[in-house]
This record gives sequence, structure tokens and C-alpha cells, in this order.
Amino acid sequence: MGFVTKNIATTNDLFIYMLQAIYYAEQQIVKALPDMIEKASDLKLRECFKSHLAESRNHVKRVEEVFRMIGVDATETDCPAIDGIIEEADDIAGEAENNSVMDAALIAAAQAVEHYEMTRYGSLIAWARQLGRSDCVSLLEKTLEEEKAADQALTTIALANVNLQAA
Amino acid sequence: MGFVTKNIATTNDLFIYMLQAIYYAEQQIVKALPDMIEKASDLKLRECFKSHLAESRNHVKRVEEVFRMIGVDATETDCPAIDGIIEEADDIAGEAENNSVMDAALIAAAQAVEHYEMTRYGSLIAWARQLGRSDCVSLLEKTLEEEKAADQALTTIALANVNLQAA
Repeated sequence: MGFVTKNIATTNDLFIYMLQAIYYAEQQIVKALPDMIEKASDLKLRECFKSHLAESRNHVKRVEEVFRMIGVDATETDCPAIDGIIEEADDIAGEAENNSVMDAALIAAAQAVEHYEMTRYGSLIAWARQLGRSDCVSLLEKTLEEEKAADQALTTIALANVNLQAA
Repeated sequence: MGFVTKNIATTNDLFIYMLQAIYYAEQQIVKALPDMIEKASDLKLRECFKSHLAESRNHVKRVEEVFRMIGVDATETDCPAIDGIIEEADDIAGEAENNSVMDAALIAAAQAVEHYEMTRYGSLIAWARQLGRSDCVSLLEKTLEEEKAADQALTTIALANVNLQAA
């Protein structure tokens, strides 16, 4: 899996490996979001997921652009972390009895995905900077900002729903 | 797995499930950190991991305290997300050729763990607040602050190492 078969020796190898992992992860997220949109009840939550689906499709393209910039073919590598996070999301949203509990579970699942992406893009940006690839840094930072904004939007929806139920 | 067998119907069910998941996750982290300490070269990174190992042991005890507060036996549930994150950490740190690349890989792996924990504790705190359990909120917030501080400390070490190599 991953590094074991890939001879990671340099920062450049690390950068390429992580790019392959996030390339796989973004595509899994694009596959997972339609089901989450269908399960969500809160209109703002559905809109947030729809908007993040469009963003995520664009993130896939940006990763392909970074591959192009560094002259490496865009390929995926296994990413057991995102597989586990999405498996847990399926579990979380499997059995909720009512809409508000389902929405709370979906928000938690989506925030786990966002945080995973934030940390991976953070590492990619640090390594791109170290490699002197400011062109890659700029592109990756755009995605990181969108992931942070999506996480913040989910927190806002979660708080609004809790306050609504408490009112 | 998880929710599928656990009849998650209410916010309280969600809270207990996630507590069981983080209880499992914290224990896996306690098991994984000694190997990361051994692999790390940078002295500050080793100290950071050692200090986080002590903190994580305390996080396990805090989760047990929250179980006690809500009158539920402390049990674990499967947590495929943390299993995947730790599997990826093993891959990342498997083949680095030199110390600085190994340290960079270890920092990325540890930050993925921290971000996972941050998002889970964030959800637990939101649900505890919704359930009117301010006693649980206080305890969980202490852990969340320590996870955030650990993530920040790792970022500082990563930046210092990059600047050192660039100098």
C-alpha cells in the first residue's frame, strides 16, 4: 500500500504520493456526496452539499493541473484514511430515526471529510513551498480555502439547527 | 459496523456512538505513538510526540469520565476512519530515505490524526451542549484545546525544519 511500494525517499516523492492520495480522495468524495444530498433534510445543508459537490469536482481538476505543472501523469494511490472516513459516514447516516438526527450525523461525517482534506492540502502546500513550486502553492491554497469555508458553513448550519430545536 | 448494528435514533444515541468511536481511536493513537517517537529524528518532534502520548493517555481517561457522567459503560466501537488514518501513517513513514523526509512524513501523519480528533470532539461538544450536558462539554473542551495545540505545535516544527533546510 502507498509508500511501501513507492520508494518514498525525497520531499518530491512525498509530494507526489500525497497528490495521488488526495486525487483518489477527492474522487471518492465526489462519489459520496450525491447520497448525502439525498439523505439531508435541512435545505441549507442540501445546498451546502450541492455547492461542495461542484467545488469538489473542481478540486479534482486542480489536482490534475498540479500533476501537469510538475510533469507527472495524474494517477491515484490507495487512501485507506478517506475510505475509512467515508465508511464511517455511511455507518453514521445508516439508521437515524428522524431528520434532525440524520442531519446532525451527516454534518459530523462531512466535517470529518473536510478536516481530512484540510490537513492533506496543508501538508501539500508546505512541501510545494519547500520544493520552490509557488505555482502549485497558489492552486492548492485556493482549494484549502474552499475546504475551510465548507467546514465553517457546516458548523454554522449545525449551530442554527441546535438553536432552532432549543427554541 | 458502528451505526448499522446500533440503532442510532436520537442525538443521545449519536453522542454515545461517537464517544465509543473516539474511545477506540484514542487507544489506537496511544498504541501508534511509541513507534512514531522512535522513528522521529528532530528532538522537538520527539518531545512533541512524547508529550502528546501522555496527553492521549489522559484523553482516554477523560472519555471514561464522560461515560461515567452519563451512566453508560465505557465500550469501544469500530472506527474505520482512525484505522485508515493510522494505516496511511504507517505507509507514509515506511520508506523515507533520510531523517528530514521521515520527519516531514511523520508530521503529516500526526496532523491527520489531530484533525480527525478535532472534528470528532467538535461534534461531541455540539451534541453534549444540545443534550444539556455542560459537565461533559467542559471536559471534552479541555481535550479539544489540547488537540488543537498539538496540531499547532506540529505546524511550528514543520515550518522551522523547512526554514532550516532553506537556510
